[in-house]
Amino acid sequence: MQVNNKLLEKYNIYIGEENYISLSKFISNGSFSKVFILVDEHTHTHCLPILICSCPVLGNAEVIEIESGENSKTLETAAQLWYTLTELEADRKSLLINLGGGIISDLGGFIASTFKRGISFINVPTSLLGQIDASVGGKTGINLDNLKNQIGSFVNADATFIFPKYLKTLKTKDLLSGYGEAIKHSILNSNALWTKLIQTPAEKIFDYPDLITEIMQVKLEIVDNDFSEKGLRKSLNYGHTVGHAIESVKLKNNNSISHGEAISHGMVIANIISELLEIHKIDFKVINKKILQIFPSIKFTDKEHSQIIDLLKHDKKNSHGNLNFSLIKDFGETIIDHPVDTSTIKKALEIYQSL
Amino acid sequence: MQVNNKLLEKYNIYIGEENYISLSKFISNGSFSKVFILVDEHTHTHCLPILICSCPVLGNAEVIEIESGENSKTLETAAQLWYTLTELEADRKSLLINLGGGIISDLGGFIASTFKRGISFINVPTSLLGQIDASVGGKTGINLDNLKNQIGSFVNADATFIFPKYLKTLKTKDLLSGYGEAIKHSILNSNALWTKLIQTPAEKIFDYPDLITEIMQVKLEIVDNDFSEKGLRKSLNYGHTVGHAIESVKLKNNNSISHGEAISHGMVIANIISELLEIHKIDFKVINKKILQIFPSIKFTDKEHSQIIDLLKHDKKNSHGNLNFSLIKDFGETIIDHPVDTSTIKKALEIYQSL
Repeated sequence: MQVNNKLLEKYNIYIGEENYISLSKFISNGSFSKVFILVDEHTHTHCLPILICSCPVLGNAEVIEIESGENSKTLETAAQLWYTLTELEADRKSLLINLGGGIISDLGGFIASTFKRGISFINVPTSLLGQIDASVGGKTGINLDNLKNQIGSFVNADATFIFPKYLKTLKTKDLLSGYGEAIKHSILNSNALWTKLIQTPAEKIFDYPDLITEIMQVKLEIVDNDFSEKGLRKSLNYGHTVGHAIESVKLKNNNSISHGEAISHGMVIANIISELLEIHKIDFKVINKKILQIFPSIKFTDKEHSQIIDLLKHDKKNSHGNLNFSLIKDFGETIIDHPVDTSTIKKALEIYQSL
Repeated sequence: MQVNNKLLEKYNIYIGEENYISLSKFISNGSFSKVFILVDEHTHTHCLPILICSCPVLGNAEVIEIESGENSKTLETAAQLWYTLTELEADRKSLLINLGGGIISDLGGFIASTFKRGISFINVPTSLLGQIDASVGGKTGINLDNLKNQIGSFVNADATFIFPKYLKTLKTKDLLSGYGEAIKHSILNSNALWTKLIQTPAEKIFDYPDLITEIMQVKLEIVDNDFSEKGLRKSLNYGHTVGHAIESVKLKNNNSISHGEAISHGMVIANIISELLEIHKIDFKVINKKILQIFPSIKFTDKEHSQIIDLLKHDKKNSHGNLNFSLIKDFGETIIDHPVDTSTIKKALEIYQSL
């Protein structure tokens, strides 16, 4: 895969530590009335000092901190942020910098896109998931109770600055969560990218900015072709149908696993479904084995098994008793909206449990 | 002024009672999964029966009612609506029809543009203000406490259907409120349109769909040239700087007047300022006299006088002790962001009080 610089330019995406200069220029040239930086307690401690030290023009920016975690992606936090921006006299020429992972960019992007009908915002993703996925593609949003991203907007950041060194501030489990999505992007692209990725351990990925660029660009190319998710973009749901159900059930049973881990198991199960439905062109055994080396197979209790099936039955993509899946035929070849009946899903879950 | 059909086509705006057929086609061809109609108690009683009778395909639509009035343009009502749409199983292929005045289209447009990152919506404005102003131009929003439209989006309705006969359901004071904005649009356009408008009494305006079209089109042309309010669109603020202050002060003192009335007095005061600053090319006396025949001059108490000045001092458009006004030089000729000092404003208020 070649880096497509035109696409990076189109979306003002800068990758690599040398781009603090571009960031400083962006701030200086923007003539913003005020600059705000949205952080959580982790990025406040570990990332903000690096950012300000490397980009001194941000020394006067107002810092707004929210609690880390999905519980901040709520209407309550959104309201607090709108009030805070109002109190701090943000106006339509202000800039919001989202310094954090996917939660910060989802929430901050939504706030910026709706405050006074839209102010400028940039993303400085600090998690692997943020750098290769959440910070690009223009989806912003907050949850409504348990409904993820029920309220949001499609709006691109004015610019995105990806500094891989921020990944050094992450715990291994957080790096692995992003690695799960990276695996997905690589499979959606090519055997070559998959091979390159799995030869690079998650714990060292910050040393490979070019690989991060290529993985991120898989998403960028897909969303560039289908910004508001009419078709092609659905291929990004690969692994997510069962993955989301696993994530929800584990969370409910106080035994939570990361998003990246959950969708990795979702991909293995989706691959088994591809084989059961005989739509596959490749042998998934090696792929599944590799994924399960990184994310060891989970044993579900009987109760969890039923809960997963129940959740899937109520999935939004359900129609006429079938679930619509994004499945893989081959590296770089997806089939979207493919109907799968419940008995096939059950069988796939059983096979997964035997791996 | 000629009707610019290309512009109406560009924004899918249909005007006239014959367009129920177009509305029915729009619904039928849209393959919407569900259709929702947002109403307040007045449009529920007086307009919805006409709409459904004239467009029977809407007989199965879900009706969502909110309380009429500015108090519904809040985050609380927005949250209720997001929850209601969720409970009623709205999905990304659903349609929201905003049947009401500016509050309904501002709120409904915002809800639709953010629910699941954006669903289709159409406006069916039932007030004069809605028909000539609020329902076109893509501004949606809700208030944050006293801050009007602090949260919102720039998004055009998928279509707007203007049926002048709905105006028959309005009280005279509501018709007059829209008439104030109509006066503004006519002055922003031409002597010819102003003359045509003031020869048409507010109480009979529903009999002149072509005039409504021309008046609405003044706004449409301005916003078409400046969608996100970088420059030209600010001309629409003519009369609004002092007008908003008058509206707020009167509301605070439990002596509220309509928006259209407030900005009409704001226009008279802005015209006096134009004369004081000698930037006028026309004699405003006839215009001011005519406006004050429709909206008789208000006597402010000393307290109200000070409150208006205080509010203006805290106006967002304030800079370096000056206020930035949109002022008129001539029919169809505006000057935007024109700095005006407080003493000139005070003097203009005094002259206004003597008229």
